[in-house]
Amino acid sequence: MNSYRSLRIALLGAGSVGAQVARILLEHGDELAARVGAPLELVGIGVRDVDAKRDVELPRELLTTDLATLVAGADVVVELLGGIEPARTLLLDALAAGADVVTANKALVAAHGPELFQAAETVGAQVAYEAAVGGAIPIIRPLEQSLAGDRVLRVMGIVNGTTNFILDRMHTEGSTLEDALATATALGYAEADPTADIEGYDAASKATILASLAFHTEVPAACVHREGITGVTDAMVQQAERTGRVLKLVAICERLEGDAGDRVSARVHPVSLPSTHPLAAVHEAKNAIFVTAEAAGDLMFYGAGAGGPETASAVLGDLVSIARRHVLGGPGGPASTHADLAIAPFDEVLARHELGLTVADRPGVLAAVAGLFAEHDVSVESVRQDPGDGSASLVLGTHTATEGRIAAVLEALAAHTDVERIDSVIRLID
Amino acid sequence: MNSYRSLRIALLGAGSVGAQVARILLEHGDELAARVGAPLELVGIGVRDVDAKRDVELPRELLTTDLATLVAGADVVVELLGGIEPARTLLLDALAAGADVVTANKALVAAHGPELFQAAETVGAQVAYEAAVGGAIPIIRPLEQSLAGDRVLRVMGIVNGTTNFILDRMHTEGSTLEDALATATALGYAEADPTADIEGYDAASKATILASLAFHTEVPAACVHREGITGVTDAMVQQAERTGRVLKLVAICERLEGDAGDRVSARVHPVSLPSTHPLAAVHEAKNAIFVTAEAAGDLMFYGAGAGGPETASAVLGDLVSIARRHVLGGPGGPASTHADLAIAPFDEVLARHELGLTVADRPGVLAAVAGLFAEHDVSVESVRQDPGDGSASLVLGTHTATEGRIAAVLEALAAHTDVERIDSVIRLID
Repeated sequence: MNSYRSLRIALLGAGSVGAQVARILLEHGDELAARVGAPLELVGIGVRDVDAKRDVELPRELLTTDLATLVAGADVVVELLGGIEPARTLLLDALAAGADVVTANKALVAAHGPELFQAAETVGAQVAYEAAVGGAIPIIRPLEQSLAGDRVLRVMGIVNGTTNFILDRMHTEGSTLEDALATATALGYAEADPTADIEGYDAASKATILASLAFHTEVPAACVHREGITGVTDAMVQQAERTGRVLKLVAICERLEGDAGDRVSARVHPVSLPSTHPLAAVHEAKNAIFVTAEAAGDLMFYGAGAGGPETASAVLGDLVSIARRHVLGGPGGPASTHADLAIAPFDEVLARHELGLTVADRPGVLAAVAGLFAEHDVSVESVRQDPGDGSASLVLGTHTATEGRIAAVLEALAAHTDVERIDSVIRLID
Repeated sequence: MNSYRSLRIALLGAGSVGAQVARILLEHGDELAARVGAPLELVGIGVRDVDAKRDVELPRELLTTDLATLVAGADVVVELLGGIEPARTLLLDALAAGADVVTANKALVAAHGPELFQAAETVGAQVAYEAAVGGAIPIIRPLEQSLAGDRVLRVMGIVNGTTNFILDRMHTEGSTLEDALATATALGYAEADPTADIEGYDAASKATILASLAFHTEVPAACVHREGITGVTDAMVQQAERTGRVLKLVAICERLEGDAGDRVSARVHPVSLPSTHPLAAVHEAKNAIFVTAEAAGDLMFYGAGAGGPETASAVLGDLVSIARRHVLGGPGGPASTHADLAIAPFDEVLARHELGLTVADRPGVLAAVAGLFAEHDVSVESVRQDPGDGSASLVLGTHTATEGRIAAVLEALAAHTDVERIDSVIRLID
């Protein structure tokens, strides 16, 4: 079986994921070699500081700070540096030299995926990035291959563990967002600077990747509408629970069917889900991706969205698959963006909203508020009014309306003298 | 893009799945061609009777009863006949001629998978069978590729929709097994002869396939221990509910780690799961596969396990993936059975059991019963005794013990004069 020469593997990065990848490659090398049909030789591990403290003790002689030289001699480059540069340049150099590439770098794939895929196609090399979305969960390959004969209608994913942990704690423990974030930080689920997670940037990168794959269309990161969880209040969580619902931050990638052809939309924002929805049962920092396809119906993929060993599993799955193809011969497949669908502006996306308002408690206010909705052609499905202390609390649920119309209603509400405050805005998913 | 010549697709079978595959190939041919990089030409549909009534109207000129001739001219053969022959011979002929094969035939793959894989490897052809397990759910490819760098510890799947529907109804509606089966038949979830489903034969075929993939080891169908659901009573369902549990028929494929090396076990039987287990939330005829791997941790794959369009989605995913590789060039990958682990006899598998007994209501009986457990070295974890009408009802939960010891205890209990009846035996999963 091992008549094929060794494959030279260059590992870039030895953080929590990289250290685990190195450990498994070194400890289970024989088993992996048998699966590939050739030995996998870890020729070096590129790091910034060879003396840094690491999760796993790694052979000193494998560590190097000369990443460019390491990449130049490799058959497969496994990139776990994160960030755009130097990762992008190193991988473009590797591909130009005919090496295959495995990366877990969602920011890089979201921002420069098409450039990498094009560089790979030019030389017949492969790029794999299963670990970039959903950590250990197989989702890239299922979308790319298993659903290749179907028509994906929607992908809705809990793809950021930090924000799921925070929202889950707000529901299960009644925590405030601040307290839940503090717990997440203490437990290592949140970074010292949590902006990328709680403002939805991380989820937006993943939305770009999922939408591009699901719809065979390049969906640039700039086209992803993004809202984080910082606007989610305890009161919104309690209001959701009163109606049997749960708040989740989700990445939604959707095919919008229209007379002028299909368009796609990718967006990240909190939603309110019925507690019976499969995604509502995704607790703590777990991830799950719920896919609806024309023929397959509803599918869900659930598991650990982060963590060193967990993410290493996805990286090594890519590495073994890519190495098998390397040994078998034949080029990697090109990325499929042939559909090239138009991207719908966020204003034209349809959703049901629930708005919480504090309004003056005097006659005619409800009529005035209702009038604003009618003026912007948004149909109100449900109203609940509770008396307050000199003011009243209104919760209005809308029928499906475009985001643009809802935004106009919100603007008009904010400007209305009888509306004291807009307390909450949440989108409802059935 | 379509400079490559057409790929000639032969479809065998035009039942509920085959008719949908034909429809989608004919209706979405352009889209699929773009994804493959070459037109997919459906050259014929092999059927037993060209005049039979079908779910979808198919072009008469494509129907043929001459399956051997159809296969002889194809680049890819899609086999949806079911059963062993003539499917086996037709596919071996196709592979010998260098054609690639897609099949949804779990019985054939379970019984003759190694023969088909060997025939494919000889000529560098591909065999894909995503639809053979879990219908629309991507599970074959994730096990084969995404988890290729990990070490799978256990696969536990609800892989038979009929039995899940029946057990779910027994829980949610309090139905008897007979009534639930009648409903399943009326709704089209059960065949006129339901034996293959309710006796666990269907699930056992799938266990063979899953175990072989997960452990890189040939696991013959004859090595799969099989129990169906016909022994599940209303009383067992009620007893499970009293303790916050749910009964499910599962296929369990497990790596048993031992001093003398790893062994594997594949078995199908009902289990009692905590209602908080992700598999407990799989209702109606849905399927789900719960995978535990060393690095990845727990993963779950959920969706429709049967149905014409749903299963067609998996078949077409295979077809597009295989056709892409056909166009790109390079051989298909061989099946990986290098690990070649020993298969553990069922007697040596470990489990926790809960036994329900009706015993004589007189002094010393509990001591006698407990003595039988001790005699066979099975440790009792919990006992509940309820008085009955002249006899008593005993429910005993064991600590982990081998199946062999439990079988010996059951034999001894059945022979004991004070034991009137063994009411239930169920395995507990945590």
